[in-house]
Amino acid sequence: MAFQSFDPPGAQPDEILRRVAALRRALPGLGIDGVLVPHEDAYQSEYLPASEERLAFVSGFTGSAGRAVILADKALLATDGRYALQAAAQAPGAVFDVTSTPEAAKEWMRTHLAGRRLGYDPTLHSRASVKALADAAPNLVLVPIGPHPVDAIWNERPAAVAGAVRAHPPELAGRSPADKIADIRAALEADALLISASDTVTWLFNWRGADVAHTPLVLSRLFLPKEGPGTVFVDAGKLPAELVAGLDGIAEIAPPDSFPSRLRALAKGRTVLADPAAASEAALNAIEATGTLKTGKDPAERLKAIKNPAEIAGMRAAHLRDGVAMVRFLAFFDAHAVGLTEIDLAEQLEGFRREAGAIDISFDTIAGAGPNGAIVHYRVDRTSNRTIAAGDPVLIDSGAQYRDGTTDITRTMVAGTPGDAFRVQFTRVLRGHIAIARQRFPQGISGADIDVLARMALWNAGHDYAHGTGHGVGAALAVHEGPAGISRRSRVPLEAGMILSNEPGDYHEGEYGIRIENLVLVREAAVPLGGLKPMLSFETLTLAPIDTRLVLPHLLGPEDIGWLDTYHARVHGALAGDLDKPERDWLETRCRPLVG
Amino acid sequence: MAFQSFDPPGAQPDEILRRVAALRRALPGLGIDGVLVPHEDAYQSEYLPASEERLAFVSGFTGSAGRAVILADKALLATDGRYALQAAAQAPGAVFDVTSTPEAAKEWMRTHLAGRRLGYDPTLHSRASVKALADAAPNLVLVPIGPHPVDAIWNERPAAVAGAVRAHPPELAGRSPADKIADIRAALEADALLISASDTVTWLFNWRGADVAHTPLVLSRLFLPKEGPGTVFVDAGKLPAELVAGLDGIAEIAPPDSFPSRLRALAKGRTVLADPAAASEAALNAIEATGTLKTGKDPAERLKAIKNPAEIAGMRAAHLRDGVAMVRFLAFFDAHAVGLTEIDLAEQLEGFRREAGAIDISFDTIAGAGPNGAIVHYRVDRTSNRTIAAGDPVLIDSGAQYRDGTTDITRTMVAGTPGDAFRVQFTRVLRGHIAIARQRFPQGISGADIDVLARMALWNAGHDYAHGTGHGVGAALAVHEGPAGISRRSRVPLEAGMILSNEPGDYHEGEYGIRIENLVLVREAAVPLGGLKPMLSFETLTLAPIDTRLVLPHLLGPEDIGWLDTYHARVHGALAGDLDKPERDWLETRCRPLVG
Repeated sequence: MAFQSFDPPGAQPDEILRRVAALRRALPGLGIDGVLVPHEDAYQSEYLPASEERLAFVSGFTGSAGRAVILADKALLATDGRYALQAAAQAPGAVFDVTSTPEAAKEWMRTHLAGRRLGYDPTLHSRASVKALADAAPNLVLVPIGPHPVDAIWNERPAAVAGAVRAHPPELAGRSPADKIADIRAALEADALLISASDTVTWLFNWRGADVAHTPLVLSRLFLPKEGPGTVFVDAGKLPAELVAGLDGIAEIAPPDSFPSRLRALAKGRTVLADPAAASEAALNAIEATGTLKTGKDPAERLKAIKNPAEIAGMRAAHLRDGVAMVRFLAFFDAHAVGLTEIDLAEQLEGFRREAGAIDISFDTIAGAGPNGAIVHYRVDRTSNRTIAAGDPVLIDSGAQYRDGTTDITRTMVAGTPGDAFRVQFTRVLRGHIAIARQRFPQGISGADIDVLARMALWNAGHDYAHGTGHGVGAALAVHEGPAGISRRSRVPLEAGMILSNEPGDYHEGEYGIRIENLVLVREAAVPLGGLKPMLSFETLTLAPIDTRLVLPHLLGPEDIGWLDTYHARVHGALAGDLDKPERDWLETRCRPLVG
Repeated sequence: MAFQSFDPPGAQPDEILRRVAALRRALPGLGIDGVLVPHEDAYQSEYLPASEERLAFVSGFTGSAGRAVILADKALLATDGRYALQAAAQAPGAVFDVTSTPEAAKEWMRTHLAGRRLGYDPTLHSRASVKALADAAPNLVLVPIGPHPVDAIWNERPAAVAGAVRAHPPELAGRSPADKIADIRAALEADALLISASDTVTWLFNWRGADVAHTPLVLSRLFLPKEGPGTVFVDAGKLPAELVAGLDGIAEIAPPDSFPSRLRALAKGRTVLADPAAASEAALNAIEATGTLKTGKDPAERLKAIKNPAEIAGMRAAHLRDGVAMVRFLAFFDAHAVGLTEIDLAEQLEGFRREAGAIDISFDTIAGAGPNGAIVHYRVDRTSNRTIAAGDPVLIDSGAQYRDGTTDITRTMVAGTPGDAFRVQFTRVLRGHIAIARQRFPQGISGADIDVLARMALWNAGHDYAHGTGHGVGAALAVHEGPAGISRRSRVPLEAGMILSNEPGDYHEGEYGIRIENLVLVREAAVPLGGLKPMLSFETLTLAPIDTRLVLPHLLGPEDIGWLDTYHARVHGALAGDLDKPERDWLETRCRPLVG
């Protein structure tokens, strides 16, 4: 079976209208004026099994972040800048007002939620998001309800998943669960820790699973006391015997549906650290019922983000294989793109990745030709599928899961000859990409402090992009992970061993989009001649040429050109030996220095 | 009388030792183990009359920010990176442990304040600073005391000031007090506002005073209800009759020593907005005793920072005059610096400024030759005064008060021929300066978001500077003002009309310092060809050449060179007509394009 399906997502508008109507009929019986439908499930995860896609069911919107508010006479679908166009296209305008900024969502709520009783399911929301809502409108009353009323009207709901769990071998994981637990405990200033994020629990136990598409996390939670065995909330039926045995003395297994009630017993008399951005309101309530809640960042999340040498080696190896697949694809694009469709390209790329050893893609490939490229998180389906015409810019954002690593890369190509205006824009985006890639920075600097480097050339031209510059990436795990990122909101210090994306873009609605994305590893920088203090820097992990035919060299500074030429020399040296002659020749041409 | 005196500051070490000993003898009688001595006075101001320089009296340290903790057996002097060298030089090491980072100060307090009773005077501290202290050490007990015990041991304390107040004329102020009050009330979401910052009250009433050196603020506070007359706490004896008359119907005068007791009566039954970073703990206690305290930013501070057209015109005019003085000084430096001293230079510059119409300097001139240039806030005195040798780098950070505006400029020169290593460093600092100067940015962007632009070239070379990149500057008022700035901590959005400094630097301890500072005005940027969204940009107000003999052109990008050449063309065009022939010729040479 292919990793990616191209069926049109979700439901027809009239189906959505019927579902919203059914939900509205249920409101009076629940004593509420409206109900909140989040994208998140009980694991507060961006990555959902089909059975938890309540927001898509009720609104048609299939993006990875957002929420709906359904009132008797009005409805809101709130998402962010990445999804502005997609949300407006998918959610029926007859029902939903669509917003794509926090300010616009707040304005809607201030207007329409004043004095209303709004139902929310405390198992589906973090306390942080409940808190943010509480002040949304004058005299708004938040009413805890459960189970979520969508579940009662969802007739053909997909079955809950129970993907088999496999071991992530020690040579790839680098450290044992016992070692990781020791590290976490050393950083823990409380009697116990609640780890709410499934990918963190999956990392901790060196598991890999199949509960959600494209991300090998195992839906689970962990209560970890400072001493003695922990309690892991996970479906025991998913675990093979040797993984159950591996928990011996480390953690007891509790069924998922005993959460959060069993948490109440575990928290008794203890100070429990939980991250209010990750834990559900229901979980925090359970801790507060018997113990003392201490809110703060989950120290395990930071430890997961700082990759160990084995994980870094795995990520480097995965990027070599993924680079070969990407080069084959880019050479194929050069020769054959005109007349093919977006789906043809996505399938071709998936094929090259399978041949390179990929066990999955890491997310649905974004393959946007012409105007579809301007939809930041565009997901091609059979109804939106465009045929590539000569001269079309095409943006492809894709990645793969390998046993040893996760990749995420965006390249923007032109099928034929680019226009000069396009080259100007492409060069500006590239300047931002390079400014991040080659920047050194001191200890303590966060992504918020350097985000502007990716934007300065765009801002000077009167452009900007409505998304962050980078997100954390897991090692053979989630393609989006915390706690660090590169955006104005990412205030977590960057530390050696973290892996992030570097992906500035420029979007021209109705015309095309440009994005250039590589993954970068934070490492200690060599101290340059005359340097006075130690610095960190980024090592670019992704290996694939950036099309120099789209670049106007005179718009780059000498250090930009130096970075690009050096990068292409690295790409060529790393990949040429693994390619057949025609593709090797193509690569050699595409990796020539920009000038001279 | 000269604006600046060059007497060595403060006391001899043995005097300091006697003062600390006297303070220590007073501790048991007050029932405390130690006492906090802040730099701030009862106005929480950076700008102090001599009678309020408690920190300098007790520690010898004369910088503009810091605090001491005096225990029976240990003492801390905590300041910041700007003052690291100065504090260590001025405070006797036999008594004081000196720290220059928040982390180091915290570490000291955690170690030495555990279980101690620490006295503090609530009239001298903001609640924010008291709150920050409360968690400094386990079982620390903060004990409110007053008056401050330093006052009892200060035998030859200078008399309290009562500088005469003059009117800031309408053509320079641009708006009347009544207009400003209407603006503040429109932004006020409370029954009343406490304005704690003297410079804001001074701005609001269009006063200018002489209470503190070099800053024409009038020590004062204002209680402003949403309707009806306010109450201004100010020494009525300082106000001429026409200014008292001008308060008619706007505000009643209350004597300063009725604060905060009278505030208690005014706050009764009202919700009062006060800025916990600006108001004293004693003031907030008074509000809470009878009314409801609402904490938040003072809206008047933001309105003061957004200069109106008359203020902007005044600042531009002041910079023309200051530019003439600076050009005359820089030409003088070129011809005569070798063999002169730092004080000679400061006096010469003050003389040129007086001839240009300055009514004061805006702060004590920092004139640092060679290693003294590496002391970020160096203040030359007769004991530290260095003679300029051929080849010495000299850093001069200075400014003036004119009737219509305030200036603040730093230039770094070399007396003779610069070395190549120096030119490399100078060019890096210049790149940071230009990156800020020419950056466009969207609405909503703060100084924190762009601070890195000034540092990127330095970071890439393994350098950094331990101070912010820019501070707000008042219009014929305080040379440092809030709420906006350019630093990683400045999260206030930049708005058109704000004036800030742009002053990256690079400091080589024991060798020299480099800093390049201009003032910039935030304004709406012209939309460039192809621009998609409106942007803000900076207009550089300061007019004086940046020495291109210190620049290595090949280390600048083409846009950097374009900015520098355009800037020099502006400087030449603006100033040449106001100079005599020899200085005009010098300017013409120094303003030639860098290349070609």
